[in-house]
Amino acid sequence: MRPIRALPLFGVLIAVVIWLGPAAHSLAQTDPLPSWNDGPAKQAIITFVQGTTTEGSPKFVTPSERIATFDQDGTLWVEHPLYTQVVYCLDRVPDVVKAKPELAKVEPFKTVLSGNREAIAKLPIEDLYKILAATLTGMSVAEFRSQAKGWLETARDPRWKRPYTELTYLPMQEVLKYLRANGYRTYIVTGGGQDFVRVYSEEVYGIPPEQVVGTAGGTKYGYDKKGKPFLTKEPKLILNDNNAGKPEGIHLMIGRRPYAAFGNSTGDRQMLEYTQAGDGARLAMLVLHDDAQREYAYGPATGLPATKVGTFTQALYDEAKRKGWTVISIKKDWKRVFSFEP
Amino acid sequence: MRPIRALPLFGVLIAVVIWLGPAAHSLAQTDPLPSWNDGPAKQAIITFVQGTTTEGSPKFVTPSERIATFDQDGTLWVEHPLYTQVVYCLDRVPDVVKAKPELAKVEPFKTVLSGNREAIAKLPIEDLYKILAATLTGMSVAEFRSQAKGWLETARDPRWKRPYTELTYLPMQEVLKYLRANGYRTYIVTGGGQDFVRVYSEEVYGIPPEQVVGTAGGTKYGYDKKGKPFLTKEPKLILNDNNAGKPEGIHLMIGRRPYAAFGNSTGDRQMLEYTQAGDGARLAMLVLHDDAQREYAYGPATGLPATKVGTFTQALYDEAKRKGWTVISIKKDWKRVFSFEP
Repeated sequence: MRPIRALPLFGVLIAVVIWLGPAAHSLAQTDPLPSWNDGPAKQAIITFVQGTTTEGSPKFVTPSERIATFDQDGTLWVEHPLYTQVVYCLDRVPDVVKAKPELAKVEPFKTVLSGNREAIAKLPIEDLYKILAATLTGMSVAEFRSQAKGWLETARDPRWKRPYTELTYLPMQEVLKYLRANGYRTYIVTGGGQDFVRVYSEEVYGIPPEQVVGTAGGTKYGYDKKGKPFLTKEPKLILNDNNAGKPEGIHLMIGRRPYAAFGNSTGDRQMLEYTQAGDGARLAMLVLHDDAQREYAYGPATGLPATKVGTFTQALYDEAKRKGWTVISIKKDWKRVFSFEP
Repeated sequence: MRPIRALPLFGVLIAVVIWLGPAAHSLAQTDPLPSWNDGPAKQAIITFVQGTTTEGSPKFVTPSERIATFDQDGTLWVEHPLYTQVVYCLDRVPDVVKAKPELAKVEPFKTVLSGNREAIAKLPIEDLYKILAATLTGMSVAEFRSQAKGWLETARDPRWKRPYTELTYLPMQEVLKYLRANGYRTYIVTGGGQDFVRVYSEEVYGIPPEQVVGTAGGTKYGYDKKGKPFLTKEPKLILNDNNAGKPEGIHLMIGRRPYAAFGNSTGDRQMLEYTQAGDGARLAMLVLHDDAQREYAYGPATGLPATKVGTFTQALYDEAKRKGWTVISIKKDWKRVFSFEP
């Protein structure tokens, strides 16, 4: 018989190693991006993450510096035919007019109330600003949150008949999780309203409010009748988080240059450029909407014209190719688009 | 002899428990705030942390909501007789004049160059703004960072003959660590310049740049001669992070109401009020400078007048007592003030 004292711990260790072995192996084999087809886009993401998180790699990035920024509309969720927040603002108009009946006869509220979609689509940008100001400001931060939350729970996208918050792209949700699992802090950097996106960002993307940078208005500190302080949303623009406003907003709100940035339009151009201009490995990617069947097709690869501000123009496509930004083709690169579809 | 097979794992487990036991025990007994004297201030912090982090407690706060905000000047480090950033700006003037010699004969630069401390101290606030604009804006974000970093490495406080970054309060450093060890994210919310504090916040306080909210100017995105993008600091105020600007800045940059807030002056009043107005357990504390021997004495408990904007007035002291905010007496509550002193 072998001596007892020397064996127990060793035996247990062997058992533990045998027990852990297959699990560790299968973990290493798990595809972090199962909704992506193999190809240059998927490979660019994996190469970037492995290079920047492997100690000893020349591309290694210390954990505190691992920042990744994502545009939202058209990058993380559907933006076509209208930004969800614009739909929200239009839907809010009847309630706003109820509270201020004199607006019913004033443009652009009159046109919005008419329900004439063609006329609404033709409203000039100044009129859109009036609608945004009337529906997004003037109330307390808490009231706004409750209004937006209520709308998100009941509103449905006309094509998929689902809440807007379900129209996020499964492959991009996987990228968010994959980056976070590798020590990256994921930020939304959106031209949309910061307060609006913060209402659902944690639940929908796992991104907390403090990691949402967006177009932001000022607030005003004041007191209610009982002396309790509260903040009122003011029609004063602090940050226009589009185009050059994106790197400016990133500096203001994060104070570090991202290592990875994802966008889908000219409004994201400067964010990608600023990201790429840093030292070491950087990842710059653009989502191209070229799948009319599963989502929408618009932009350079489709032959369809760039009809709205901030879209993916031919010039942006050419710049991406020239600068080595990776273009993600929804049609070719995404095995699945939405979690609710096979 | 006992049967071998049944024993090994059990024996190892027992050994592990015996081995971990004393360590776990001594961990629970460790004082998280060793530089604090026992008293109501120390007790308020410990009661708050235990109450909000013990599952099942009626005061429990989910980890994602655990936000604590700290004023910097006079709360985390010495602010007397001048804010460190003001010393920095005054010290920068000769270099600014070197680059623009025409300023040498223009006020307030002429007075600053004279070195006449009394005359400098009497400069009106508008002149101070001119100095801030000339020394904090007009350069790229990277240049500013490098200028501030260089100054912090060489500048010495005249009383302690040490780098300013060593003049942080050890008891407050312990509070930062204690809160973080209990899942709180610690933020600086300062009237000082956001970009300035971000230069050293991570190294000095363990607070990363994205958790520094401060007075912030705009930046402008542009390109150098080689086409590389960079941000220039502009003399355009985006956020005046003082008084009501503190809760407004917290909403802009964090988007959540803090559960704990620490300050030392009327500039922090609204931040404490806003924090306390939330539901559940909230902690609001004010540092009172009443120890001329180990640090400085100014404010209500000292009989000394409130000589500068944002100081601890008698009215603030009375309000704190009325509202249940805890006043931290440096003299009574802090066993040690600085890490470099016994």
